[in-house]
Amino acid sequence: MQTIYLAGPGVFRPDAHAWGQDLQQYCAEFGLRGLYPLDQAAPADLTAAQAAAWIFQANCDLIRQSDAILADVRAFRSRSEPDSGTAFEIGFAHALGKPILLWLPDLEIGATMLDRVGSHRDEGGLMVEDFGAPLNLMLWQCASAVIYHTHPKLALQEASFFLINSST
Amino acid sequence: MQTIYLAGPGVFRPDAHAWGQDLQQYCAEFGLRGLYPLDQAAPADLTAAQAAAWIFQANCDLIRQSDAILADVRAFRSRSEPDSGTAFEIGFAHALGKPILLWLPDLEIGATMLDRVGSHRDEGGLMVEDFGAPLNLMLWQCASAVIYHTHPKLALQEASFFLINSST
Repeated sequence: MQTIYLAGPGVFRPDAHAWGQDLQQYCAEFGLRGLYPLDQAAPADLTAAQAAAWIFQANCDLIRQSDAILADVRAFRSRSEPDSGTAFEIGFAHALGKPILLWLPDLEIGATMLDRVGSHRDEGGLMVEDFGAPLNLMLWQCASAVIYHTHPKLALQEASFFLINSST
Repeated sequence: MQTIYLAGPGVFRPDAHAWGQDLQQYCAEFGLRGLYPLDQAAPADLTAAQAAAWIFQANCDLIRQSDAILADVRAFRSRSEPDSGTAFEIGFAHALGKPILLWLPDLEIGATMLDRVGSHRDEGGLMVEDFGAPLNLMLWQCASAVIYHTHPKLALQEASFFLINSST
């Protein structure tokens, strides 16, 4: 059974644990084992700084253990940018040779960065990249697959098709 | 001479080339060789998609060649989040064992994510992490050093101090 790390800003949801359990349940239905960042709780006696170090190490370890990454790259505190922790994890996993499945639950197929920002310059005066893709090219180019389903169950079904077909 | 990859959203500035040349000049003054994503131009006959693939590969190659990363993680289209391409590059470089120097030119020392977002919940209703750090913990915890100078020359001076002292 293939193991998939479930990266994304779902860990910041008020119902983060239930969200992760749903994702893992869908993984199981489709023949995958889902690893979720909140699978393990940091020991209760840690300081905030110690807890952050503990979580960092635990997440890196989960990525190392995984066969692939499903990265929820929906817009996060921005019109066009994903959660930066998820972007970090994509880069980390890519360097380790793990397939990256990008999940864009909030976009239509064909949406571009220009569509998302709405202008060739952003509000800070910076240029908006124009390569026909909806994400920064460093994220887009490392993807083995891109999944647009809004519902997580459909997204994980597509992820499982990809992973099971690409491994046979 | 140590080589440092200059990651950050400066590549989106209207004066991106001049910005990079300034950074590289400061590197040279302080005994470093700066690698900048725009050092090499993609061949002119590529399609947009081909150019994106070319730039992705060129940037990954520059990171592999570098001894360390200076990552400009200033807020980007958001109050609290850096450019996602830079976050990707930090994760990629960290997995390769490169020291990460985070550069926060727009923050005061001691600023936290809570200060930046201004609330325990963001506008999307998601929880704001509260570990006493100004960035997502995946970025913060991988840092070998954090640099707060606003002026790039001072930032690169501090980067050179760190790299040259830590190599002796």
